[in-house]
Amino acid sequence: MKSHTRHLTFNVPARMDFVNITSQVADEVRKSGVREGLCLVNAMHITASVFINDDEPGLHKDYKRWLEQLAPFDPSPERYQHNRTGEDNGDAHHKRQIMGREVVVAITNGKLDFGPWEQIHYAEFDGRRRKRVLVKIIGE
Amino acid sequence: MKSHTRHLTFNVPARMDFVNITSQVADEVRKSGVREGLCLVNAMHITASVFINDDEPGLHKDYKRWLEQLAPFDPSPERYQHNRTGEDNGDAHHKRQIMGREVVVAITNGKLDFGPWEQIHYAEFDGRRRKRVLVKIIGE
Amino acid sequence: MKSHTRHLTFNVPARMDFVNITSQVADEVRKSGVREGLCLVNAMHITASVFINDDEPGLHKDYKRWLEQLAPFDPSPERYQHNRTGEDNGDAHHKRQIMGREVVVAITNGKLDFGPWEQIHYAEFDGRRRKRVLVKIIGE
Repeated sequence: MKSHTRHLTFNVPARMDFVNITSQVADEVRKSGVREGLCLVNAMHITASVFINDDEPGLHKDYKRWLEQLAPFDPSPERYQHNRTGEDNGDAHHKRQIMGREVVVAITNGKLDFGPWEQIHYAEFDGRRRKRVLVKIIGE
Repeated sequence: MKSHTRHLTFNVPARMDFVNITSQVADEVRKSGVREGLCLVNAMHITASVFINDDEPGLHKDYKRWLEQLAPFDPSPERYQHNRTGEDNGDAHHKRQIMGREVVVAITNGKLDFGPWEQIHYAEFDGRRRKRVLVKIIGE
Repeated sequence: MKSHTRHLTFNVPARMDFVNITSQVADEVRKSGVREGLCLVNAMHITASVFINDDEPGLHKDYKRWLEQLAPFDPSPERYQHNRTGEDNGDAHHKRQIMGREVVVAITNGKLDFGPWEQIHYAEFDGRRRKRVLVKIIGE
């Protein structure tokens, strides 16, 4: 069994934004030499997500508006008790649960085994600082 | 390490519906010959989900009504900017994020290692056409 | 390839509560002897979740209030058709979909490869009885 580990770093200038990381993950698959296996991609921070969906700007705007409705940014400690700790990112912990922590992608014939529109995105909900994404590949 | 790959195809006649695919996945586990390992099952399309929950018709109706509340079908480009692309399925991209893209299931003693009510479902949110689900099994 | 399987049992005294299970999962990683691999942790019941986020009491209260807004407890069969089966836990099946069934965590150098605040939680939405969580580890 082969394994390959890589920690990617992002510093997203906005509080909330999405970054297409498919080509970076595909690079790691190539480097791993794995032909058949699994590729885990997960946010290492709890106010960020990794998700697979379309890389379409209108959809990304829709997601941001929708997440803001489901869990509005509010730095006060009234809406989010979490903000009593001195943080202002209670909303980000909720948005991350909707969009998910991780994806697991099959590797077949040495490539990400994807449908026609699947793209891997890093989703930042509390940006403007360095945060990491883990890529772990196992297989043969 | 063994690996086994299968792409299942579905053509769900409704816009939104759920299909129990547990027995098809279990068949692939048997064919794989894997006794101890992991089984990934994921939608290959971004307006569909794979989820594990009870196969109970009342619950499935509840899910559909709830998802419709959280992300209503609306082909207009006002609610979903995604629909400015000519698509009418903006809602489906949101429903899919709630229900998830994939499940990873343990294989123990050659079988899906399941609790008493776990059933794998394909969830279609933009049906009436052929779409695929990937089953990837690795282990020994 | 090595594999290691463990079924953990929980009996949460409240209907809804979260339990930090990180140290129990880390114990299983140690016992597995796996240095490089993947660790799957999933609820085996369909009214419970496993999720990774901060172990901060204010945040946990926020999650509970938010989940109660998104899918209120209501034993009547009017809001949840699922409750026509004699169950009163329709809400729990919805809360579980928001928080997710499972997490997959990388194992690197024999340890859970975690960011600074990642903690694995068992989330109970229909407690006061014995329920199980599966830990499955594969790797080398």
